[in-house]
Amino acid sequence: MAASDLAARVAGGDVRALARAIRMVEDGDPAIDPVIRELRSRAGSGRLLGVTGPPGSGKSTLSDRLIAHWRHDGHRVGVIAVDPSSPFSGGAILGDRVRMQRHATDSGVFIRSMAARGHLGGLASAAREAVRLLDASGRDRTLIETVGVGQSELEVMQLADTVIVVTTPATGDSVQISKAGILEIADIFVVNKADLPGAPKVYRELKDLVRQTKAHAPWVPPVIQVSAQEGTGIDELVADIDKHTESMEGSGELERRRRERVRAEVEAIVVERAARRVRAALDDESMRAALADDPGSVDPYALAERILNTDGAARG
Amino acid sequence: MAASDLAARVAGGDVRALARAIRMVEDGDPAIDPVIRELRSRAGSGRLLGVTGPPGSGKSTLSDRLIAHWRHDGHRVGVIAVDPSSPFSGGAILGDRVRMQRHATDSGVFIRSMAARGHLGGLASAAREAVRLLDASGRDRTLIETVGVGQSELEVMQLADTVIVVTTPATGDSVQISKAGILEIADIFVVNKADLPGAPKVYRELKDLVRQTKAHAPWVPPVIQVSAQEGTGIDELVADIDKHTESMEGSGELERRRRERVRAEVEAIVVERAARRVRAALDDESMRAALADDPGSVDPYALAERILNTDGAARG
Repeated sequence: MAASDLAARVAGGDVRALARAIRMVEDGDPAIDPVIRELRSRAGSGRLLGVTGPPGSGKSTLSDRLIAHWRHDGHRVGVIAVDPSSPFSGGAILGDRVRMQRHATDSGVFIRSMAARGHLGGLASAAREAVRLLDASGRDRTLIETVGVGQSELEVMQLADTVIVVTTPATGDSVQISKAGILEIADIFVVNKADLPGAPKVYRELKDLVRQTKAHAPWVPPVIQVSAQEGTGIDELVADIDKHTESMEGSGELERRRRERVRAEVEAIVVERAARRVRAALDDESMRAALADDPGSVDPYALAERILNTDGAARG
Repeated sequence: MAASDLAARVAGGDVRALARAIRMVEDGDPAIDPVIRELRSRAGSGRLLGVTGPPGSGKSTLSDRLIAHWRHDGHRVGVIAVDPSSPFSGGAILGDRVRMQRHATDSGVFIRSMAARGHLGGLASAAREAVRLLDASGRDRTLIETVGVGQSELEVMQLADTVIVVTTPATGDSVQISKAGILEIADIFVVNKADLPGAPKVYRELKDLVRQTKAHAPWVPPVIQVSAQEGTGIDELVADIDKHTESMEGSGELERRRRERVRAEVEAIVVERAARRVRAALDDESMRAALADDPGSVDPYALAERILNTDGAARG
């Protein structure tokens, strides 16, 4: 299929075209570049919500509730559940996501679990492109979910307009949160499993923590007690998401974040192209000969410079 | 300090110079490039062991035992404990590593916990350079430890000559292991906490799994029952590490792996330089003006191409 056909079908909301385009992003297929470029002007009106938190904090159950709420309000919803490809926790994470599957038969909800094995730019680049495809296909609420286990997951959260950090009485150690840069990314804190003992304590600790920091001033991140399982606190959460959007629009923060993201995207595109070219250059005959030498005697810096200095290898 | 001075001091085994050089790697300081380049010919004789496994599997206690064993045999030891910068588990991981600190006063052991926040090439590139510095400084056994929680940690393991995957009766789910690409990287399996109930079952499952796969033929990864806490099984583990080295030397696999790593290194150097250049280019006046436009109307692909097509921006 030509790029413009695929782009037109994605823009028309065709779910199979959307699935195919996202698969291409995930695989790092260069044929998706013109599609994304063509769809760029169609994206940008939808809102992007990030949900992160440790394993077992109930992110997927919470996402399920948000989806139901938005669908009830008539929104079209996209969900990207980022799979960190963890060799040790992969199974459990996928298992959790089964909870969202009750929406699978609703054509107004598109859910996709994604890894980024083929994508040179990594998870954050792949997620950015997937989210743009969802936005361009008319999803006005897109939810991106990560397990907070590393730098790349934090980068994914930087794509979102509003970041929700989910904790529980079991995992919500406020000392950890204050140490780990979570405060800098959280726009809203959810204390999930609020019916468990210990929830009021976590709630108070987070409230104190939020009061002491001015990371998002004038916005003060609210702390909301939720039971995703029971469905309590969800209305308040949705209201706070809307308030956050209004606050960001009013303070210019939304535009500032979007500007930052454009910059990050330019960087990602350049780096990804350089990576593609170096891979191609490494398969050149002369380069293969150089690499066949005794590994101890090869100077990788000299080979890198040879590639960088070759016309067409390091240029557009 | 000039690059050649720093390189000479690292090569002389100066611990403070080594610490300083590794810090520069971690910070992504370009001034370390000539140092690493100069030291390259001095590295390559030491052996590099990778240890990975889920949180709580006892990796650090196991590393502690290996260090003690090697020290007893007269080896000089380096340890790089890779910190995945996890916002949610960071504290616990650092806590674990305290267990290795009894070696802190032994000048024959150099232990460093490292993150890679400043390093554009990511954790794997930073770890590769740190490991080379340790090797060049005369450490003939270097141990690199990661928590197996993502793609970047798997990449770190690909630096090692021998990869040890640690499981326990609690975490050693063989189904997870067979799904997750762990089989492809494991040269030796350790069932730690072998005194716990369930250990014989995990042992048998891993044995079956290993028998069914030919990932490392002719080498068949041994499965060793260990209690790092009690110190049992460590002699067998060290013997199997030595056997693995001999097998790799005999089959040509060691050279194949080292060749692969040179290739990966060239790639990493080119990508990192491209990233440095794009960051510089983005701070140019004309680029800043372009980025100040309405974020929705900026075409990042066009800006990326402008950078790629500018002489000196994308070239050596």
